[in-house]
Amino acid sequence: MSGRLAVVGLGPGPAEWMTPEAVAALAAATDIVGYRSYVERLALGENQRAHASDNRAELARARLALALAAEGRAVAVVSGGDPGVFAMAAAVFEAAEEEPGWRALDVSVVPGVSAMQAAAARLGAPLGHDFCALSLSDNLKPWTIVERRLKAAAEGDFVIALYNPASIARPSRIGEAFGLLRGLKSIATPVAFARAVGRADEALTITTLGAADVSLVDMATLVIVGSSETRLILRDGARPWMLTPRSYGAAR
Amino acid sequence: MSGRLAVVGLGPGPAEWMTPEAVAALAAATDIVGYRSYVERLALGENQRAHASDNRAELARARLALALAAEGRAVAVVSGGDPGVFAMAAAVFEAAEEEPGWRALDVSVVPGVSAMQAAAARLGAPLGHDFCALSLSDNLKPWTIVERRLKAAAEGDFVIALYNPASIARPSRIGEAFGLLRGLKSIATPVAFARAVGRADEALTITTLGAADVSLVDMATLVIVGSSETRLILRDGARPWMLTPRSYGAAR
Repeated sequence: MSGRLAVVGLGPGPAEWMTPEAVAALAAATDIVGYRSYVERLALGENQRAHASDNRAELARARLALALAAEGRAVAVVSGGDPGVFAMAAAVFEAAEEEPGWRALDVSVVPGVSAMQAAAARLGAPLGHDFCALSLSDNLKPWTIVERRLKAAAEGDFVIALYNPASIARPSRIGEAFGLLRGLKSIATPVAFARAVGRADEALTITTLGAADVSLVDMATLVIVGSSETRLILRDGARPWMLTPRSYGAAR
Repeated sequence: MSGRLAVVGLGPGPAEWMTPEAVAALAAATDIVGYRSYVERLALGENQRAHASDNRAELARARLALALAAEGRAVAVVSGGDPGVFAMAAAVFEAAEEEPGWRALDVSVVPGVSAMQAAAARLGAPLGHDFCALSLSDNLKPWTIVERRLKAAAEGDFVIALYNPASIARPSRIGEAFGLLRGLKSIATPVAFARAVGRADEALTITTLGAADVSLVDMATLVIVGSSETRLILRDGARPWMLTPRSYGAAR
């Protein structure tokens, strides 16, 4: 089989965060497969076919892409952020496992800047030390494992980056998570809500675990909860910088 | 003050992983500050000044960059990977905290692809679900916090990405960490050593927690230890894909 499939990370939004490798992978594709809002923002060539699908159809999208590659097409599956972080790469390899013929395909992953990195860049250096990345979605995992991981992240005093903190079906996820974390960490812990970073409606909120208004959090928000070392550097007339220093326990 | 400072992520190595924003930030700088091996690989303009320094001199480098920006220069501090992940962003904000005048400067961070993302892209989708990123360096933190975090990461059944797994001063860090993890996780857990990803001497090793030969791990290696869900997809005549699926506990 001569077909191939690249899972391409578009970065968090603007083209200035898309790598040259991603641009080249898109240009080399005969078929572009992805969530409608990602596919629609690309300028495709006249010989390129677009296959747009709805959100939450990841596995069906992955199967379509693999079937096209098995026909000999050069397929790009587009993904927001980094495809390896809560995005399309896992779905593609899950689907590839289903058909022995698909395992023989040339499948590659083109990494990108993930939402937590774009958010961290805007805020200062909140991920400057050990951290966890955790999805609050319970579509594909039980809420008990979310709770177990939040407890472990608090026990390890990791900075915590929360993906998928809310959904239309379950807007209260972030409230439940913060309810749990408030019992495990200082309520003075710095918290940031980074919404739509890199897009026109970007909004940053810096608050604390105790004071955070979780009603500000929606599907486009990346939430960062600090460790015991995370602090704000206050500035006159400007947003504070959020810093998790490279050292740990220096004051103890 | 009209000076400004950008902390610029160069990505893991090749130019194809450097974002257009990073390229533009370098082009706009009058002064480039960084670790010698990063600075030397850049093609600087004739009006750009390079300030190269040795590794482990992060705070001194950050102070120099801030002092130059305070003089009105346009400074780029270059960093491998993503500057926000175990790299120069934290050092710059730590230094900026020291001088009230430095807090008034225009400091920005240009995110990049981090080593764990490049490694994951090569391997399949090992970070496809919740994960922790943890540095094994004990230069700036006690080994007891490393142990506490490894235990918590195992308790939470996170995938674990280990940065700085070895150093010349302390080559045995990874051995100590694996000794601990072998008592906490299944010895059949998939493990990957991804060395120098994107460079000419790239080398990938896929093994298990029980069988891993930690003598293969050096300073240029990124280590990924799976969760209980991480599995290998075997392929005829090709390296297996490493996958952490988006679901959790589906078989239970």
